[in-house]
Amino acid sequence: MSTTDTEFLADFAAMSRFGATPGGGVDRQAGTPADHETRRWFGEWLARHGYAESVDEAGNQFGTLELVPGAPYVLLGSHLDSQPLAGRYDGAYGVLAAAHAGASVAAEARGGNLDAVYNVAVVNWFNEEGSRFTPSMMGSGVFTGKLPVADALATADPTGVTVAEALAAGHRAPDGSAPVLADVACYAEIHVEQGRNLEESGTQVGIVDRTWAAAKYRVIVDGAQSHTGATRMEDRRDALYGAALLIAAARDLADEFEPGLLHTSVSEMYVLPNSPVTIARQAVMNLDLRSPDEGVLARATELLGKGIADAEARSRTQISVEQTHRWGLVAYQPDGVALGTASAERLGFTHTTIMTVAGHDSTNLKDAVPTVMLFVPSVEGISHNEAEHTRDDDAVRGVGLLTEVARGLVRGELQTA
Amino acid sequence: MSTTDTEFLADFAAMSRFGATPGGGVDRQAGTPADHETRRWFGEWLARHGYAESVDEAGNQFGTLELVPGAPYVLLGSHLDSQPLAGRYDGAYGVLAAAHAGASVAAEARGGNLDAVYNVAVVNWFNEEGSRFTPSMMGSGVFTGKLPVADALATADPTGVTVAEALAAGHRAPDGSAPVLADVACYAEIHVEQGRNLEESGTQVGIVDRTWAAAKYRVIVDGAQSHTGATRMEDRRDALYGAALLIAAARDLADEFEPGLLHTSVSEMYVLPNSPVTIARQAVMNLDLRSPDEGVLARATELLGKGIADAEARSRTQISVEQTHRWGLVAYQPDGVALGTASAERLGFTHTTIMTVAGHDSTNLKDAVPTVMLFVPSVEGISHNEAEHTRDDDAVRGVGLLTEVARGLVRGELQTA
Repeated sequence: MSTTDTEFLADFAAMSRFGATPGGGVDRQAGTPADHETRRWFGEWLARHGYAESVDEAGNQFGTLELVPGAPYVLLGSHLDSQPLAGRYDGAYGVLAAAHAGASVAAEARGGNLDAVYNVAVVNWFNEEGSRFTPSMMGSGVFTGKLPVADALATADPTGVTVAEALAAGHRAPDGSAPVLADVACYAEIHVEQGRNLEESGTQVGIVDRTWAAAKYRVIVDGAQSHTGATRMEDRRDALYGAALLIAAARDLADEFEPGLLHTSVSEMYVLPNSPVTIARQAVMNLDLRSPDEGVLARATELLGKGIADAEARSRTQISVEQTHRWGLVAYQPDGVALGTASAERLGFTHTTIMTVAGHDSTNLKDAVPTVMLFVPSVEGISHNEAEHTRDDDAVRGVGLLTEVARGLVRGELQTA
Repeated sequence: MSTTDTEFLADFAAMSRFGATPGGGVDRQAGTPADHETRRWFGEWLARHGYAESVDEAGNQFGTLELVPGAPYVLLGSHLDSQPLAGRYDGAYGVLAAAHAGASVAAEARGGNLDAVYNVAVVNWFNEEGSRFTPSMMGSGVFTGKLPVADALATADPTGVTVAEALAAGHRAPDGSAPVLADVACYAEIHVEQGRNLEESGTQVGIVDRTWAAAKYRVIVDGAQSHTGATRMEDRRDALYGAALLIAAARDLADEFEPGLLHTSVSEMYVLPNSPVTIARQAVMNLDLRSPDEGVLARATELLGKGIADAEARSRTQISVEQTHRWGLVAYQPDGVALGTASAERLGFTHTTIMTVAGHDSTNLKDAVPTVMLFVPSVEGISHNEAEHTRDDDAVRGVGLLTEVARGLVRGELQTA
């Protein structure tokens, strides 16, 4: 293992202490003290490695390196925030890989070994996870103009703390020096796969060519409060029972298709009044459908309507479903995929194109600038869990690939995309 | 309608302003400002009507009237606290009826029209509802020695506020003058039915002779966190899905028996981490089974075991079930039922013996002293809902019945029970 690789792994271990959990993971939801500690540490790392640090109004944290005065940036990054009780790699691996790759490429350019036509910037996007503040991919959403910054800042967590308050309480205030979208020529991100495809096929790296199609809903089940003991079963309008029927129906949907063609989930639930002796008047929950096939998603959405009607009838409740997000099978730019593939080829890594099921900040960036999205294997595909793990050799191989991609980007190879 | 009846209804309307909700109900969970306002108003009412007010360490609020120096008390009461968004009658009706009945009986005794062998006390039991602080029937549980006072005071609500703190923040501190169990000769309570039996049979009053059997559980479903989108369906161990299957199974249990023989419910649920993009690692919920037939309850408990095993297998979770309460078909003392029946008969009210599905403070009291429990009709049996309603003529008829029962109790007619 090279000195660079050892340094990367040591930095990664140091960073993973922030918000560390007894189960070997991290818990640093966006804007919490643990997130701010990680941001502070990363800011110091950037300064030590010659980057100028800045923060924008949405809480996105940047490090910039000037190689070509006045030129746009090649932006590299991911996110340092995590789910509750999450793994150490999700997001944080990509941010640190970006910082190392950017520093290496800048050193090569300054040493005369690389013809730079762009500057280099790294970014830690604020609140990619969306577990504390909805929606997810918030910082990159604001950066790409998809989400008004005022909406983002006014978003409150379940205890009423807003993004604005959470940011003000933490590391570094914006001073107007952070890059904006117009300053960015292209973007690259690396992430752990959050699936088993690379591991099972024994492939070293993946170049993301498409996202799964997805439909996300907010579901409200309205019933009527009544006494849990005294109310006759036939008189009940039990919102929690209606919600339970719909959760089961959503799970059963997946079995209507070949394995792997439909993922469904409900993972968040609020019950009113949530009392041990009063039947729930309301249950509010999320519901996601995802598929690598838009036809499957459309058919699943249709079948879901039947599941909702059944749940309403059996529980005597009213179920309203609001679609909060929907995207089709979106492609990453073929030129970016080609650049990623050529880079892996040059380094002698086994590689494949791959789809992403999860959303990433690159999902926002690819709609605005030429983008390359890379994956490294994740053991058993375990994700959003403290047991998430990527082997050291896979981790450093990924840094090498991102560095090679960054070289191409800084040379302007994706300029015409 | 008599002057007394008019006064009762005016007092009831005045009391119902505390914690009043836009939907026509009240929201005054135990120890909240709205509960304390009601307690303060009731304390002033007691003082105006000649009662000496006192509070014990568990927050039970008493008013005492001395007729026979040193004699034990006939205790009359119910509870002023409510469920969230609840009706105005549940509990509060019984407390005000007790206060009016006690004052009438004392006036008769002092006027020489009643031979009193006991004194009279009324009580507002603290935290009957148990929605904010578990368990329910807390104050009467402490009073009857079933629950240690230290345990009650240390109980915290979901935000961490303890009963001790909630009581200290509110109306009146204990000074050692409140009655204790040894001072009580017998108890009577009146409550709205929380069911439709009296209304459907056109009966004016009910005398409770038994409680339904019940088994209450705390259920913990353990799964594993993972990404809602990326995790393959067959790799998931989804705690919320496991919980949903069990909620549906519990509901289906009721259909295994004749209508009315089994009530089942799940009404309270906590999900971890409750994130829109992370499958739940844990769901915690309550589960109740209630029946007027102990054999049905036993059979239902057996069938529930199968429902749990099925839910575990289908969701790949582990479900642990802890029984928190269980009681059989418990009878109220026949002498008390006979006294209630004779009182209704004397007043010319149509009457029936009736079972209670819900627990009441009298459920605790009847295990300690001779007890009479009375019901008045409730429109459509709506309970734990702002729409709960009892007609004025039914309400004042109940006050009359409780007063007649109190006369018998003060004369010592239940002395030998």
